[in-house]
Amino acid sequence: MKTTVIGLGLIGGSMAIDLRKAAVATELVGVDRNPANALRAVERGLVDKIETEDKAISEADLVILAIPVNAMSQLLPSVLDSVKEGAVVIDAGSTKGSIARAVANHPRRDQFVAAHPIAGTENSGPDAAFSGLFRNKTNIVCEREKSSDYALAVALRVFDTLGLNTIFMEAEEHDKHVAYVSHLSHVSSFLLGQTVLDIEKDEKNIFALAGSGFASTVRLAKSSPEMWAPIFEQNQEYLIQALSEYIMHLQKFHYHLMKRDTKELHRIMSGANEIRRVLEGIELKTSLTQPSPAEKVK
Amino acid sequence: MKTTVIGLGLIGGSMAIDLRKAAVATELVGVDRNPANALRAVERGLVDKIETEDKAISEADLVILAIPVNAMSQLLPSVLDSVKEGAVVIDAGSTKGSIARAVANHPRRDQFVAAHPIAGTENSGPDAAFSGLFRNKTNIVCEREKSSDYALAVALRVFDTLGLNTIFMEAEEHDKHVAYVSHLSHVSSFLLGQTVLDIEKDEKNIFALAGSGFASTVRLAKSSPEMWAPIFEQNQEYLIQALSEYIMHLQKFHYHLMKRDTKELHRIMSGANEIRRVLEGIELKTSLTQPSPAEKVK
Repeated sequence: MKTTVIGLGLIGGSMAIDLRKAAVATELVGVDRNPANALRAVERGLVDKIETEDKAISEADLVILAIPVNAMSQLLPSVLDSVKEGAVVIDAGSTKGSIARAVANHPRRDQFVAAHPIAGTENSGPDAAFSGLFRNKTNIVCEREKSSDYALAVALRVFDTLGLNTIFMEAEEHDKHVAYVSHLSHVSSFLLGQTVLDIEKDEKNIFALAGSGFASTVRLAKSSPEMWAPIFEQNQEYLIQALSEYIMHLQKFHYHLMKRDTKELHRIMSGANEIRRVLEGIELKTSLTQPSPAEKVK
Repeated sequence: MKTTVIGLGLIGGSMAIDLRKAAVATELVGVDRNPANALRAVERGLVDKIETEDKAISEADLVILAIPVNAMSQLLPSVLDSVKEGAVVIDAGSTKGSIARAVANHPRRDQFVAAHPIAGTENSGPDAAFSGLFRNKTNIVCEREKSSDYALAVALRVFDTLGLNTIFMEAEEHDKHVAYVSHLSHVSSFLLGQTVLDIEKDEKNIFALAGSGFASTVRLAKSSPEMWAPIFEQNQEYLIQALSEYIMHLQKFHYHLMKRDTKELHRIMSGANEIRRVLEGIELKTSLTQPSPAEKVK
């Protein structure tokens, strides 16, 4: 399939690598509004060439959208306007409600498959892309009934090629779930980073005492604001709910700490220990998917 | 040196392994109030034998205390009462103010060295102990001027043998710093765990969408409440301060999210990105210290 990838960062770039490897994409055209990223994607061989948006979209059999979610909602209707009959459009956005609404009444809605492959690292840009990013990861497809059988079949072939395990879900349910298990952990990490960077102004050598536990908890604070600000904006409603609950739990903990109610603190932590069950599930899912240096494309 | 280790968990057990390897400990006696842990420590060969507290303390050249910090403050004065002249006592507690106060006026204060080796995993107990846990990690010694030159020399030999890099600090400064770079990240992780476990009651399959970013942020929620409840209690004052600041930052973020002020959210996240500098420092420090399976004692 002649494939156009719009957005040549970690997600779009990693898809391009593995779709070419499997010969699912026979020709790869790239589009990126950042000229440096576009150039770098060609240099790394992620795509064969860069073309203008119009040309790249109108000539493709498959269009993959891997751009920030606010840009996605804006661009997607015009992509559907321009694709040829029978072409398939897939997005990889981390929120699904607003994207679904943006094309709800589009005459070519059935050529589009709304997807969210849950994969990523804290790095971004074409240099962050690598083969195997999606292997054994979970992929959510929303509103499957609104995609044609043909579009869904093409999309599932793409997802299978990438090694994704696809499940189906409603867009609103998806957005609520990711608010809790992804967006909230990013917020908690960004603000933990800010809190300790703030105190560093008064306590110069504070990071001499930071160890691997701190590093693990604050790792996501390295994430790209360009990607995450739009996600938070688009998923505002559910994220506010998740964040409010998190703040409430922290305040309760703060209260018991103030009261020196160590027994209650112990009870709360013992309850939170149940997260072991969840973490074992994630480790099982991802144990075979860490990139080895050899897998990374030069 | 005839060495007694009180508390045969991750910290005490890992010290025992490497002190024996280097022949710094020629005889290893263990004390643990949990009989199952004591038995397991002998089975694993962490110590040669188990003895009563009194006997183990009065006959040792070196006593290492690796028990929860509240028990430490209680036990330490009587340990100093019982040790022989010239014996050296080292603790490995994660808070230092209350321990320092507990023995401030003890006639044998100079036989004691107050230390905090910053190392650990989210696992606990004798089975969690492994060789190399302390290699290239930071160790804080507090109130060095209150230890005799001899006690300090013995302690530094122990720390060097374990591969620790020792720095010196006042007890209060230590407690304030660890509140921010260690205790706060544990609290943030415990409560993140609680928040998502709570919502799971209503949203059954929510963890299908959890990936490696979530796992990293919530990893510390697996930590032992037996160890952490006393640490939080002992470091209450500084932890309340750190936690209040964290909650305030989260509330500000919540406010800007509610106002859809994406530009301000972007600005906050860009500021938090500066944590990259800190994380690179930690990675540099710990890059050679991950346990390989071969290093773990059977």
